Amino acid sequence: MPAPCFPDISAIQYAGESSVDPLSYRFYNATEVIAGKTMAEWCRFSICYWHSFTWKGSDPFGVGTMTRGWDDEAPGSLETAKRRVDACFEFMEKLGIDYFTFHDRDVAPEGADLGESNANLDEVVGYIEENMARTGKKLLWSTQNLFTHKRYMNGGSTNPDFHSFAYACAQAKKVLEVNKRLGGENVVYWGGREGYQTVLNTDVKREIDHLAAFFKMIVKYQEKIGDDAQLLIEPKPREPTKHQYDYDAQTVIGFLYEYGLDKKFKLNIEPNHTTLAGHDYEHDVLMASKFGMLGSIDANSGDPMLGWDTDMFPTDIKKTTLVMKTVMEQGGLKTGGLNFDCKVRRESTDPRDLFIGHIGAIDNFARGLRNAARILEENVIPGMVSDRYATFDEGLGKKVESGEATLEEMEEYVTKNGEPDQKSGRQEEYEMIFNRYV
Amino acid sequence: MPAPCFPDISAIQYAGESSVDPLSYRFYNATEVIAGKTMAEWCRFSICYWHSFTWKGSDPFGVGTMTRGWDDEAPGSLETAKRRVDACFEFMEKLGIDYFTFHDRDVAPEGADLGESNANLDEVVGYIEENMARTGKKLLWSTQNLFTHKRYMNGGSTNPDFHSFAYACAQAKKVLEVNKRLGGENVVYWGGREGYQTVLNTDVKREIDHLAAFFKMIVKYQEKIGDDAQLLIEPKPREPTKHQYDYDAQTVIGFLYEYGLDKKFKLNIEPNHTTLAGHDYEHDVLMASKFGMLGSIDANSGDPMLGWDTDMFPTDIKKTTLVMKTVMEQGGLKTGGLNFDCKVRRESTDPRDLFIGHIGAIDNFARGLRNAARILEENVIPGMVSDRYATFDEGLGKKVESGEATLEEMEEYVTKNGEPDQKSGRQEEYEMIFNRYV
Amino acid sequence: MPAPCFPDISAIQYAGESSVDPLSYRFYNATEVIAGKTMAEWCRFSICYWHSFTWKGSDPFGVGTMTRGWDDEAPGSLETAKRRVDACFEFMEKLGIDYFTFHDRDVAPEGADLGESNANLDEVVGYIEENMARTGKKLLWSTQNLFTHKRYMNGGSTNPDFHSFAYACAQAKKVLEVNKRLGGENVVYWGGREGYQTVLNTDVKREIDHLAAFFKMIVKYQEKIGDDAQLLIEPKPREPTKHQYDYDAQTVIGFLYEYGLDKKFKLNIEPNHTTLAGHDYEHDVLMASKFGMLGSIDANSGDPMLGWDTDMFPTDIKKTTLVMKTVMEQGGLKTGGLNFDCKVRRESTDPRDLFIGHIGAIDNFARGLRNAARILEENVIPGMVSDRYATFDEGLGKKVESGEATLEEMEEYVTKNGEPDQKSGRQEEYEMIFNRYV
Amino acid sequence: MPAPCFPDISAIQYAGESSVDPLSYRFYNATEVIAGKTMAEWCRFSICYWHSFTWKGSDPFGVGTMTRGWDDEAPGSLETAKRRVDACFEFMEKLGIDYFTFHDRDVAPEGADLGESNANLDEVVGYIEENMARTGKKLLWSTQNLFTHKRYMNGGSTNPDFHSFAYACAQAKKVLEVNKRLGGENVVYWGGREGYQTVLNTDVKREIDHLAAFFKMIVKYQEKIGDDAQLLIEPKPREPTKHQYDYDAQTVIGFLYEYGLDKKFKLNIEPNHTTLAGHDYEHDVLMASKFGMLGSIDANSGDPMLGWDTDMFPTDIKKTTLVMKTVMEQGGLKTGGLNFDCKVRRESTDPRDLFIGHIGAIDNFARGLRNAARILEENVIPGMVSDRYATFDEGLGKKVESGEATLEEMEEYVTKNGEPDQKSGRQEEYEMIFNRYV
Repeated sequence: MPAPCFPDISAIQYAGESSVDPLSYRFYNATEVIAGKTMAEWCRFSICYWHSFTWKGSDPFGVGTMTRGWDDEAPGSLETAKRRVDACFEFMEKLGIDYFTFHDRDVAPEGADLGESNANLDEVVGYIEENMARTGKKLLWSTQNLFTHKRYMNGGSTNPDFHSFAYACAQAKKVLEVNKRLGGENVVYWGGREGYQTVLNTDVKREIDHLAAFFKMIVKYQEKIGDDAQLLIEPKPREPTKHQYDYDAQTVIGFLYEYGLDKKFKLNIEPNHTTLAGHDYEHDVLMASKFGMLGSIDANSGDPMLGWDTDMFPTDIKKTTLVMKTVMEQGGLKTGGLNFDCKVRRESTDPRDLFIGHIGAIDNFARGLRNAARILEENVIPGMVSDRYATFDEGLGKKVESGEATLEEMEEYVTKNGEPDQKSGRQEEYEMIFNRYV
Repeated sequence: MPAPCFPDISAIQYAGESSVDPLSYRFYNATEVIAGKTMAEWCRFSICYWHSFTWKGSDPFGVGTMTRGWDDEAPGSLETAKRRVDACFEFMEKLGIDYFTFHDRDVAPEGADLGESNANLDEVVGYIEENMARTGKKLLWSTQNLFTHKRYMNGGSTNPDFHSFAYACAQAKKVLEVNKRLGGENVVYWGGREGYQTVLNTDVKREIDHLAAFFKMIVKYQEKIGDDAQLLIEPKPREPTKHQYDYDAQTVIGFLYEYGLDKKFKLNIEPNHTTLAGHDYEHDVLMASKFGMLGSIDANSGDPMLGWDTDMFPTDIKKTTLVMKTVMEQGGLKTGGLNFDCKVRRESTDPRDLFIGHIGAIDNFARGLRNAARILEENVIPGMVSDRYATFDEGLGKKVESGEATLEEMEEYVTKNGEPDQKSGRQEEYEMIFNRYV
Repeated sequence: MPAPCFPDISAIQYAGESSVDPLSYRFYNATEVIAGKTMAEWCRFSICYWHSFTWKGSDPFGVGTMTRGWDDEAPGSLETAKRRVDACFEFMEKLGIDYFTFHDRDVAPEGADLGESNANLDEVVGYIEENMARTGKKLLWSTQNLFTHKRYMNGGSTNPDFHSFAYACAQAKKVLEVNKRLGGENVVYWGGREGYQTVLNTDVKREIDHLAAFFKMIVKYQEKIGDDAQLLIEPKPREPTKHQYDYDAQTVIGFLYEYGLDKKFKLNIEPNHTTLAGHDYEHDVLMASKFGMLGSIDANSGDPMLGWDTDMFPTDIKKTTLVMKTVMEQGGLKTGGLNFDCKVRRESTDPRDLFIGHIGAIDNFARGLRNAARILEENVIPGMVSDRYATFDEGLGKKVESGEATLEEMEEYVTKNGEPDQKSGRQEEYEMIFNRYV
Repeated sequence: MPAPCFPDISAIQYAGESSVDPLSYRFYNATEVIAGKTMAEWCRFSICYWHSFTWKGSDPFGVGTMTRGWDDEAPGSLETAKRRVDACFEFMEKLGIDYFTFHDRDVAPEGADLGESNANLDEVVGYIEENMARTGKKLLWSTQNLFTHKRYMNGGSTNPDFHSFAYACAQAKKVLEVNKRLGGENVVYWGGREGYQTVLNTDVKREIDHLAAFFKMIVKYQEKIGDDAQLLIEPKPREPTKHQYDYDAQTVIGFLYEYGLDKKFKLNIEPNHTTLAGHDYEHDVLMASKFGMLGSIDANSGDPMLGWDTDMFPTDIKKTTLVMKTVMEQGGLKTGGLNFDCKVRRESTDPRDLFIGHIGAIDNFARGLRNAARILEENVIPGMVSDRYATFDEGLGKKVESGEATLEEMEEYVTKNGEPDQKSGRQEEYEMIFNRYV
């Protein structure tokens, strides 16, 4: 057993608590059954590698602030990389979380060339494999980092230069292989530099065509190697590029239909990206779900007053309730999960902060799940919504939904029936009732 | 001939000008040929009815400020409606503009029921028809107002109540007929209330399905009556609804593909809506054009610091240059045009302000057209862009574009060729060269 | 007694409730004592005239939707104006709320000239006075409407035209008199058009000087008539103007100091305006309070995804908790109150919606008050904050606060003591603990 | 002479230019006289150290992309620091620019403790001094970096921990000394971490009091050492903190008055910060200038669609015209200048991009200066503005401005003169005329 990276969780107490009140869940209970599934099955929480074990606290105006025992000696070495694996598995075990996620370059250092990078990756992946076997932890998804290295400064799969594009493809190929080896349940594509910085130097059509060509090669190769992990695209409107082609859920769904990829890909929704696109937190989760495209969720939060990705731990119970209601309505996340793509604040430099951030977020989603279950079970709000649309359940309304109605019939109906009755939208009442559940 | 509604344009002078310098175009010359077409053919300017002849200057915090001679007696009467037609045609003639656009309820008052509303519309449309015959002016497009009346408070074609939905359909049917009668070259669908105010009371999937059902009935009826006007959807992210389903160009294009409507509809892009969606002014024009979906343009401008639709006259020559460059690259707007969906400020209460607003905007697009023509003719910027993508014109790059390449080939290429050379994106140079043209 | 304007509140039930569960408060109890004051004394809730009794449901894209029994006959008449007074007092009594607020033009119609407008106002104010005497209800504040009439299109007290400026002054004079007559506890100044639409036509210095001159005349006249109502300025960043001079709390506080008005005015903070200025909901309440400038609160909410004033009823318990914590920390609102500057949504057209909106909001503030009281009583969070600053409570830190320290002493201290210890900001822990209270 | 860091500027050509057209100014001519001063005197351009000579191209999602010959060997050494001085002076000489600016930590590496850091700084400053003597280049301003080191993660002069506060003071003391030694004409205070990340853990009043205490110690020490450089505060609303106390120009001006510091400090305005605060590019320059507080300008540009500091080279001639018009109206920048706080895009990795970025920006300000001079000379727009306020130049209007008028006089005026005439704000006309100058 490797030496521990973290203190004993039971020794950590909250401020203001008596000595008998250590860190623990107050709402989350993995084995408790809610609406036919355990809470663990509904939530499928996942730890993410980059924010919690690789990132050291830098921001655009400051250097790293974090001292991470597992990471501070021999940075960039394979030994450090393996020590980080220890930290990750120890942390998952201490929190009782089953899944994790990573980018290729989070777990193993870039080598002098592609061959060496792949060899590095293979070695660390082997060590991860051992740890998975030992602990039973599982890989929710992995992904390729096509944005940190300077070769991707002008894009990965949308790079105007073919050579860089090819490199992105080679890296993605390796991730498909690694993900299969580790039994990863999904593969995620987030293209932070797949967009433009200025339209003056960009052929947007050609770049989007290349993006689609990249995805088609992915599908082809995944079929070839016989892998069936769910492929997921993660939308984001901007940052680091000025404008990303995968702006939001509706944009990506439309792109998939336009290029005939809608059967092969679903979406990984990150609410922090949703709010940056000008939508409410829950909007993209809802839109993706209702159109059968919600694959997984990066369970973080942004700040509506800030224009960049803050990747905060979620603290708003209303929002977690709306997300879990949507998840329950679609019968669960299937291969997906709630992945904590969250980082402690740069100023939260104690190891205890890492635990508190995750425990708080897990409890907040557990509260959301409990609330959502009550909303669905009591059926007040869902019932009110159904009633609002009841005129489409029969007669001409039903005919409209079946696609058989005509404008002439509509005109005739109005001529006969005159002005519609006014029906209040009752927003304040929905809000008041919803507030009783949170 | 009706009595004039406006002063003689030649009597209006700019501030600071000598007495021999009346209002006139300084850059626009309808008959001057640029790159094989007249300026009038490239621009196809259009006057819009609602902002210039119907709106009286109210805003959410204030009542109307405008005294409009043609509109102040007997408001809501057919006489006033016809007097407004006089104003519109006189204004077009004085400016030398060939096209106009309207909502059904701009030109004729709502009646006691659908029958009376349609009769009102028919009468005023008859008067418009006479004026078109007399002057040779043409209808760029018409559209239905599905947002002002209280029956549409919960939506038009996405109203949860079938009866209101049916009313929206009936109104749209009449507009198809009227548009055909007047030879309108397009029909526009802007759904300001086709979205949600709160997800708590809304079934978004059902509403979007109804939206698609509405459009399919439109297509069916248009075919039935043998009309071939181009159908156009106008994206907007929000306002008056909190969230509109037709958020932006990519969203609408995706929707059209998803519902199999992509062959029937194109887009009417309004840059003020584009900026409200978080994109640059030219973004939606560019995206729509490059995907073959740009039908027409509402040639206005918003204020990037304000979160609502200001519908200002465009004043930024860089932006008009980028728009006209895109228009030229796609060979012109075909059935579409540059429609001045712009209003003078609420404080610009003199008739001269209406003229100055339009003349300034027309000149700004004329400057944009002249600049764009030079950019394309000199081919410095387009050439630099082509060079950027040249590695996809041959070899493996070309194979990627043809859809025949594989990830294995990409990996092999990288293994053989190593790290790509770094190529500067040269944004500052593109900007500096572009600035020389404006 | 006038005929009732509203249904019997006890006959209204929530959706989903059994027949024995009528509309009522679940958290608010006016007479319950919290930390030494009744809930009514802490909250001092106030009804606002314009949104609830005057506004009819129009928005920039649609006409009114509301049928208001008290307001639909003879619009603009004094009879209607008095009937609206009936509605207001009946509503306050049914809700058990003690205060109300109004603009001069909400309660009485504009006349043909200033004299007639003032006479109209006097007559309706007389009727209000009778109702106040009858019911014991009180005027929290009144204010002058310097933004609706077209004479104010270019500003009220910042209008470039002296004649319009004088009109604004005359109107403000009358409001001071009316407010005194009714025993109003504050007078509010909100200047929706006191800013610029474009810097091109504006002398910002001269306009701000005029704004200060206006306020100095107010002070002088208030002293002359022997009134001691608290004067309040309400900040807002924009809308209807592009840019308002009273951008936010810090800006207004600075303005007051710069022009020597800081002893005479406090602030009326509206959180919906705060978020439009790019700050969190509670920011301006907090900043005003900590600098001794918080006079009153317009207890509404905006939508962080929308760029305009939505004036929604508050639904976020975290935010009401933070506001009430600040109010408790300053020992109460004194002459101020929580004024519901909120409107039901345009689609919420039933009278029950008006009740539900207010009851929900009152309960949400009551929850906030209860939470805040527990936070302060248990002292976990306040204690953690005090500890964070403890190094300034003694030694050189204390000397810094007293203004006697020098840079040389600071340098000497660092030279002697070296690098400071790292202290985590513990944001996640604060958030987690705070979440336990809500 | 040190070996050159850059290629010969005359060998660099623009794309699309003939071989006889090297990099050069097209609009800027340092010695040309405009309105009584040379262009160099009006503009006082300054190069900034951090973006052009220290920054290597990292962003929150990517590592450095720039290969800088002067900076890549022995990073962090004094030798590298001096080589960077060579690069800076060579660059200034090649561009013909007279001023530069720096943070203490840009020019010399942080040492093991304060003493070593100061010794490092002294050594490099000595080398800078030699270069200044050799070339005649001047220091526009210097400043202290109180945001990069982890000791400042919770703030510099607003750090809750006294020890960190003291460190900030010590660093600022040294900068005052260094600035005096080099004859720096100003000292700038930008407090990127002087604000809060969450109100839950923050005592905002105490922090702002500490900020004022810090500034008062600065004033005291500057007087003691007999330095008369102008002290400048630079506003910014957020980033890296969630909320900075120095939000914008009006906020800082107000703070200075509130704490009695208004005679000692002026403002350094950065338009990129202005737009992040929700104001137009020119707003803070204008507000600061009109209230006598404009000290210097960081002549960069942001992107209104992005929510973070992009620090781009300015490309909008309208904006540079408005800024230079304000500068001319106040008679020049005095001790301040136009400091290029701009960085080439992360993708602009060639040395030529550094030249092109600066040359483009200089030319854009030169165009702005030429335009502004014509606007002021022709006096059309200024004359129209004066006319708008003419009613305050005499009679009662004048009495208002002198502070002697009363509300009673205003009422009397309105009673006698009735309703004001309507005067159009003529925004479109101002915009059209302004557009002729750009």
